[in-house]
Amino acid sequence: MSDLFVFVNDLFVPSPDASLLVSDLAIQRGYGVFDFLKTIDHTPVFPEEHLARFLHSARQLRLEVGRSKEELLALIHLLMEKNDIPDSGIKLILTGGYAEDGYTLSKPNLVITQNHLQLPAPGTFEKGVRLVSYPHQRQMPDAKTIDYLMAIWLQPYIREKGADDVLYHKEGAISECPRSNFFIVTADDTLVTPSENILKGVIRGKVLQLARQQFKVEERPVLLDEVWAAREAFITSTTKHVLPVVAVDGRQIGEGALGKISKWLSEALSHQITSSPFPEDHRST
Amino acid sequence: MSDLFVFVNDLFVPSPDASLLVSDLAIQRGYGVFDFLKTIDHTPVFPEEHLARFLHSARQLRLEVGRSKEELLALIHLLMEKNDIPDSGIKLILTGGYAEDGYTLSKPNLVITQNHLQLPAPGTFEKGVRLVSYPHQRQMPDAKTIDYLMAIWLQPYIREKGADDVLYHKEGAISECPRSNFFIVTADDTLVTPSENILKGVIRGKVLQLARQQFKVEERPVLLDEVWAAREAFITSTTKHVLPVVAVDGRQIGEGALGKISKWLSEALSHQITSSPFPEDHRST
Repeated sequence: MSDLFVFVNDLFVPSPDASLLVSDLAIQRGYGVFDFLKTIDHTPVFPEEHLARFLHSARQLRLEVGRSKEELLALIHLLMEKNDIPDSGIKLILTGGYAEDGYTLSKPNLVITQNHLQLPAPGTFEKGVRLVSYPHQRQMPDAKTIDYLMAIWLQPYIREKGADDVLYHKEGAISECPRSNFFIVTADDTLVTPSENILKGVIRGKVLQLARQQFKVEERPVLLDEVWAAREAFITSTTKHVLPVVAVDGRQIGEGALGKISKWLSEALSHQITSSPFPEDHRST
Repeated sequence: MSDLFVFVNDLFVPSPDASLLVSDLAIQRGYGVFDFLKTIDHTPVFPEEHLARFLHSARQLRLEVGRSKEELLALIHLLMEKNDIPDSGIKLILTGGYAEDGYTLSKPNLVITQNHLQLPAPGTFEKGVRLVSYPHQRQMPDAKTIDYLMAIWLQPYIREKGADDVLYHKEGAISECPRSNFFIVTADDTLVTPSENILKGVIRGKVLQLARQQFKVEERPVLLDEVWAAREAFITSTTKHVLPVVAVDGRQIGEGALGKISKWLSEALSHQITSSPFPEDHRST
């Protein structure tokens, strides 16, 4: 397999040459933002939404992108032509730049990578995922920063608890998973998801739009107690779409299987995304 | 001026070539630790303490250094020989490594840089510094991680408030500044500093040792109210030593000048560090 190309500032370079100097503020001070979108059959999915959020995150961190949404999309298309991967994950990273004093923001460095799409393992949608809760609030939650210190540090804890991922909460009020948003369906068939202290995912927005056509929807604080009492629960993300959550902290949620509202939303979302990224055996559920 | 050398994994390279691939987990996920020590007249200051803390931070983040303290010190000496800067700042950085999936810890990357020592501007010790408080708690405070998202983001706020740096607190209990520890002297001449939710600075430890010979010392939670009522306040760090704090949130601390206990500690510390890094006009105060 030949090396993939990576865009770094002004150049497309083969991945073994795609690097940043160690004076970059991502390496020195963990300062940067990113966004992640996927392509299906050579077509970016929701590029407008992802690029708008990338620009929003950059503004929040006071980083000048120096390029318009249209220019970024053109770069993405150039990268796609060079790499020729039909189904892929595309990541844009913007860092604090090369800081002479290791502390002061400088001209940001822009990196765009494209990789083969990493999807949940086959059967994940049918089995659902298990979460473990953990007290943590992301800094600047409204921006998609590169701060995943806690998420990566918690990996052994998650495995030890027999879980697939972590659900953050603050004094019992849940927020999100490190890379996905969290929803419950209550006993009276209301779809509920936190509205604050979270990153507003693109798929979260699409699911809310779809749900409002059919169900009662509430965006409000959600307590762990409500999660355990929920009839259904699921997480959403660019790669996970609508993925059932069957247990939190070892306690079964609802029937411990895909619920009817989750199923409806999953199908409606797949329909909206021209061709689903899930293999055939997933799509049929 | 010729390029300085940087140590990256196994090689000494000129700084324009000192880089990490963009797949590194510092760039992808802000995951890494570091330490910073200085050299005076070609001699590292408190290398034992800094290297012990570097290894501690790495352990906390589950990063394998793969080298002993002695091996790291040998690398530092080799770098010092190559760069030949008598008074310098040396930084060791250890990242989460090159992650194929952009998420899973891999073999850590080790970077060691040496730069000319950046000291506080002349007159800073005499004038003292002004702090502004801000509600924030560093993640994993006991490890020197590269997470300075809030510290860098707050730079415009600090300037706007007419301050020199920020003092973090959580519900009124103070912790630390982003790059220094904080002390007060109470009305009854007790030296008090927080003991929890902080990074334990090397100079903090030295100051506590020296203070215990002469004064009553307490390591305990410290409220902002106590700070404003304090007779003296100062911050400590590798480059700042003992630096008087003359105001917090615009409220003058004590006489708004170098206090007698701060002065004693500053002199005792300078005496302990073979030759002071402060220029002659600073040392005399």
